[in-house]
Amino acid sequence: MTLKVSDIGEKELIKYIISNSKDIIPDDTAITRFDSTNLISTCDMLIQSRHFPDNMSYFNMGFKAVTVNVSDLAAMGAEPLGFLLAIALPKSLEVDSFKEIIEGVLRACDYYQIPLIGGDTNEASEIIITGTALGLNDKPVMMDNYGMGDLICLTGDIGLAALGFELDDVNSIYARKALKPEARIKEGMILKEYATSATDITDGLASELYAIKKEDYGFMIYEEMLNITDEYKNLSESLNLDYLDLILNVGEDFELLFTISKENLEKLPIDCMVIGEVTDSDVIELTLENGFVERIENRGYEHYVSE
Amino acid sequence: MTLKVSDIGEKELIKYIISNSKDIIPDDTAITRFDSTNLISTCDMLIQSRHFPDNMSYFNMGFKAVTVNVSDLAAMGAEPLGFLLAIALPKSLEVDSFKEIIEGVLRACDYYQIPLIGGDTNEASEIIITGTALGLNDKPVMMDNYGMGDLICLTGDIGLAALGFELDDVNSIYARKALKPEARIKEGMILKEYATSATDITDGLASELYAIKKEDYGFMIYEEMLNITDEYKNLSESLNLDYLDLILNVGEDFELLFTISKENLEKLPIDCMVIGEVTDSDVIELTLENGFVERIENRGYEHYVSE
Repeated sequence: MTLKVSDIGEKELIKYIISNSKDIIPDDTAITRFDSTNLISTCDMLIQSRHFPDNMSYFNMGFKAVTVNVSDLAAMGAEPLGFLLAIALPKSLEVDSFKEIIEGVLRACDYYQIPLIGGDTNEASEIIITGTALGLNDKPVMMDNYGMGDLICLTGDIGLAALGFELDDVNSIYARKALKPEARIKEGMILKEYATSATDITDGLASELYAIKKEDYGFMIYEEMLNITDEYKNLSESLNLDYLDLILNVGEDFELLFTISKENLEKLPIDCMVIGEVTDSDVIELTLENGFVERIENRGYEHYVSE
Repeated sequence: MTLKVSDIGEKELIKYIISNSKDIIPDDTAITRFDSTNLISTCDMLIQSRHFPDNMSYFNMGFKAVTVNVSDLAAMGAEPLGFLLAIALPKSLEVDSFKEIIEGVLRACDYYQIPLIGGDTNEASEIIITGTALGLNDKPVMMDNYGMGDLICLTGDIGLAALGFELDDVNSIYARKALKPEARIKEGMILKEYATSATDITDGLASELYAIKKEDYGFMIYEEMLNITDEYKNLSESLNLDYLDLILNVGEDFELLFTISKENLEKLPIDCMVIGEVTDSDVIELTLENGFVERIENRGYEHYVSE
């Protein structure tokens, strides 16, 4: 039987490209040394049927296309420099809907202070937006420079978007996070002076922890530090969903996951949640509220669109 | 009736974006001032059903995705710095076909000496490739800095790809140009020292001439300087196609169209074809081989895929 792309999965495709290119450093973005600083560049393609929930407005599609890319800059601690927009639209799309998408893109560019400098338009059977974000950073925050005993932190609550995708109420805090997530660009630019590593949570906490794990190092996450409210648990239960699965395996919150030494945490001038610590266990574990410890599995990320 | 995207066309969509963004300078690429030089950035999205002829190999799809972007760098006279690849594939695509695309991308990156530094993979109903090319140039060649009396030139023959799209013989010089075009990156880096303006011909000579035209300036093109062979005319005739229409309105050759002063043309260290001159007529005209003069119309570009 001939092997199809669907048989091996997206992560294997990426591995194939990386292993065949001598110039790709696997991290949130590319880094190109340039005079006294580094050019930080990243691109992400969003496809309507995969990345935009049915109840997402055209404005929010445009906003999100900027956010996902700026979020990668944030994970490197980069200062925004410019944004390129390549967009394909179905012929039948109304011009007003196109204008709403562009309004979302421009508003996001203003919000993140990243100028829209160029792009391309095209035609396709559904809306496809590839953003390219460019930034600068003299000291990029890599994914895996942490040491034993460093604390594991988040810039904010996670799991909200995961629940938001499942709820009908578009005005809840969960839906707002699902439909109009925001990148932590200011926090990233501060973290570069304090953190030992950082990445953005797009594919779920579990998936990101596996992405940053290096040999002989492990992570212990504490459920009681994840700030899970009773409301969150109740809403998950009412939808027949496992709240820990939502928090660990969905993502799309665009918070930053970072590590930091205990000394630097005291000096850090932004709010954050400590959720665990770097250990020498070589495994990724979760201490449940009841005190039991279980392995966190790498289920891979599941997008909210059933396929 | 509600206005659809198809009612206003791609160029109007681009105009709308540019008129609503304060940071886009309309040219082949974006230009971002950076220390003592400029960061040159551009992105182009290629969609299988629109940009890849049926008889194009997977390798050549990958190669072309790099070429179209590098060609924009060439038009600015930029030195290549890095390439980002965002690619979406149908689930049913064979893994070997995916590997051929990547081989084409990597071979093109080697050829143009532009390292593949990052990217994204995705799933879609057809192959979609968005490339982003980054380059550097302390003195970018703009589209419209020409003066009266400057000569209009090309880096090589045009119209070959246009004919190639129509022919069944995939080994002809025409088909090779259609299926594996090459960007004039080295020529662009030389032209920046001599030319008064440059752009790459993707959408047809007529369309590009209209893109670079400024008020009170006109262009006179001479048919006899276009190097049109008898073979070219005969092949066009056998296909019931107008050879001048192929040459003026199809494009996809990725040659550079540039203007240069007569003095600088003598010093220019690369081969080129002079095809006309900048006039004060405020119109774009063609002197036919029979001596008659006619207006060149701006038909807009027509891709080879019928829609």
